[in-house]
Amino acid sequence: MTQPDAPIPRIVILGCGFGGLWAAQHLRKAHAKVTVVDRTNYHLFTPLLYQVATAGLSAPDIAGPIRHILADQRNTTVLMGNVESIDVAARKVKLADGGEVEYDSLIVATGATHSYFGHDAWAPYAPGLKTLDDALEIRSRVLLAFERAEREGDAAKRAAWLTFVVVGAGATGVELAGTLAEIARQTLKGEFRNYDPRNARVVLVEGADRVLPPYPPELSEKARIQLERLGVTVWLGKRVTGVDAEGVTMGDERLESKTVLWAAGVASSPLGASLGAPLDRTGRVKVEPDLSVPGHEEIFVVGDLAAVEGVPGIAPAAKQMGRHAAKNILARLAGRATQPFRYRDYGQLATIGRKSAVADFGRVKLWGFPAWFVWLWAHIYFLINFRNRLAVMIDWAWSYWTFQRYSRIVTKRTW
Amino acid sequence: MTQPDAPIPRIVILGCGFGGLWAAQHLRKAHAKVTVVDRTNYHLFTPLLYQVATAGLSAPDIAGPIRHILADQRNTTVLMGNVESIDVAARKVKLADGGEVEYDSLIVATGATHSYFGHDAWAPYAPGLKTLDDALEIRSRVLLAFERAEREGDAAKRAAWLTFVVVGAGATGVELAGTLAEIARQTLKGEFRNYDPRNARVVLVEGADRVLPPYPPELSEKARIQLERLGVTVWLGKRVTGVDAEGVTMGDERLESKTVLWAAGVASSPLGASLGAPLDRTGRVKVEPDLSVPGHEEIFVVGDLAAVEGVPGIAPAAKQMGRHAAKNILARLAGRATQPFRYRDYGQLATIGRKSAVADFGRVKLWGFPAWFVWLWAHIYFLINFRNRLAVMIDWAWSYWTFQRYSRIVTKRTW
Repeated sequence: MTQPDAPIPRIVILGCGFGGLWAAQHLRKAHAKVTVVDRTNYHLFTPLLYQVATAGLSAPDIAGPIRHILADQRNTTVLMGNVESIDVAARKVKLADGGEVEYDSLIVATGATHSYFGHDAWAPYAPGLKTLDDALEIRSRVLLAFERAEREGDAAKRAAWLTFVVVGAGATGVELAGTLAEIARQTLKGEFRNYDPRNARVVLVEGADRVLPPYPPELSEKARIQLERLGVTVWLGKRVTGVDAEGVTMGDERLESKTVLWAAGVASSPLGASLGAPLDRTGRVKVEPDLSVPGHEEIFVVGDLAAVEGVPGIAPAAKQMGRHAAKNILARLAGRATQPFRYRDYGQLATIGRKSAVADFGRVKLWGFPAWFVWLWAHIYFLINFRNRLAVMIDWAWSYWTFQRYSRIVTKRTW
Repeated sequence: MTQPDAPIPRIVILGCGFGGLWAAQHLRKAHAKVTVVDRTNYHLFTPLLYQVATAGLSAPDIAGPIRHILADQRNTTVLMGNVESIDVAARKVKLADGGEVEYDSLIVATGATHSYFGHDAWAPYAPGLKTLDDALEIRSRVLLAFERAEREGDAAKRAAWLTFVVVGAGATGVELAGTLAEIARQTLKGEFRNYDPRNARVVLVEGADRVLPPYPPELSEKARIQLERLGVTVWLGKRVTGVDAEGVTMGDERLESKTVLWAAGVASSPLGASLGAPLDRTGRVKVEPDLSVPGHEEIFVVGDLAAVEGVPGIAPAAKQMGRHAAKNILARLAGRATQPFRYRDYGQLATIGRKSAVADFGRVKLWGFPAWFVWLWAHIYFLINFRNRLAVMIDWAWSYWTFQRYSRIVTKRTW
């Protein structure tokens, strides 16, 4: 029951990815002052980020302004800013550009980034794919490599510009490799005079013995076959031991390449550490069954930053956790007990390229065109607002029939 | 007549804006080796650049990959690169990243950029609008100013974040100012909790005594009235004497503003000077009546870099010049005399905002909704390819009915 003369509780949400946004929306009608803090001004539909990186979609197609999404939610304030630290004793969040936000309840949903397994020196030579800036950087490098090859007279140097290495064969790596092969074989066909882009090499390097390790082995095998059919060279059981401006080293082996993309490690947001809670190997916060932080029942961690047994780091899991944390906060405010989080597994999907994908729904497993069809509609359906959904459908219909990719523009020069 | 055993003539085109692209397309069937060099990989529809800057369109909506546009033109090679210099004696173009391109005939179409009238120190505080990078920089500054204001507690500081100054009331300045006023009054309405964005100030500063100086005075007056109706403060007869991080100085007057946009001076591409030909005050090449360079009948200059009496620096003029230079090169190769360039004036159009524009077709002058309607269809019609045209129509239809601007995402942080 709400007591009219009690102070209005302040709920602060850090990060507006799937976890943070779903939490905020669940608090729509709460008698509370909700504040959402994000370092960007948009909510990003990360499952399609690889499409921005490979010029199939434009950045605004997959990003919606947070304050527009939450505009009608009158109890909610949106602040753009970097969180510097959390003072759990004083219940305050400190922002990097000055200013503090006080909370009574806190949801930390700042996610994860990519990690180079302690080799941060590799970062400039092998960009990862976690943010919109990452995607635009990758797009720029890929398109510029083909441009540079057209101007290169030396055959060995040209081959290095036309060799693309993707490190890591999880969902992102598979998506990137498959799409790069498509670009070389289809999109750019007939556009160069000094070489044939169909001779470009796309090499997918994976340390494990199969692609898509979290999937059932038979789907990994289907995915590998589809990748090779698209023209991707799949190297399994190879561990990268060095990355530099000229290529990749794997033990004794060397691959000359001017374009290396990193789709391997994951590292959690450093804010997890500032909570003083136990962390797992990748820096995720080991939360209580109700998603709260041990010793701080007013703080909840959701999404990729939360370590919960059996819950994968995918969008549907983050949404479920966000909603659950919001429910538990409302329960506490009403004087009721919090509930443990239970993950509902709807399966997982990974796309490989035009008409190729794999889907694991437990007993039902799909691959090839049927899996791709399910993937396509699921992703269009889940895109956050109608404008984006329509625009993405048009972009994709256009790409499908013409093999063209309409975002083939480079705005940052890197050579 | 083409002699089968003569060497194939090499025609090089520098710059692929309206002048360069129209020249290249006119050479489609020429018995020649055509090479197009541009520092970007796209042809840019510059008349709509202000829409990218104000988040109404995404960058790919107005940019088409040059090599895709010219893919079927088998006699044409596209090279992406910066031109470092032109050696007119040796008939060679030197590229910045290494490499040379030899020519028998040359078309220089590298255009113009903005100028700070000798005050280059103002550049970091007042970005201009000539390239896609400029547009994304402006978009980022404008959106971040509104974000920053939401976090600012001090009233005077907040007012500086909510004051937008546009310097120069030519077509670009008028378009920017009108659209900024619309964003503050309509697009962002109801999205902030700590201030009302409708209180933002947009000030358009012009040195002359009327807006749109190249237009007939009665249309300038109509444009000023429409701007003020949209909420723009128009300051005429004011010369900017200083720009810094905190605002703009005009003689004794001072305007505190964190966001100053530059739409004033024009400076020609520095390549003009390397031709050894006479230049006008703004650095444009004084060409012969046939658009060739005095003393170099094999070199032609077209578009914003060419000084031709009575020809304005607008897209239709550049297209006409590009086509004309290509015709004259073909005439020379066939042993015929070149023809003088004659400009066909189809009028000029400037948009101000939703349902506001001015159009000057000589005896016919339009303003308000009829001018805007003509402007809208002319611009959609002239967008270079079908995909873009359709996408732009959808984006605009969406914006028109919802007042939303779908590209409201910031990827570069500037504070």
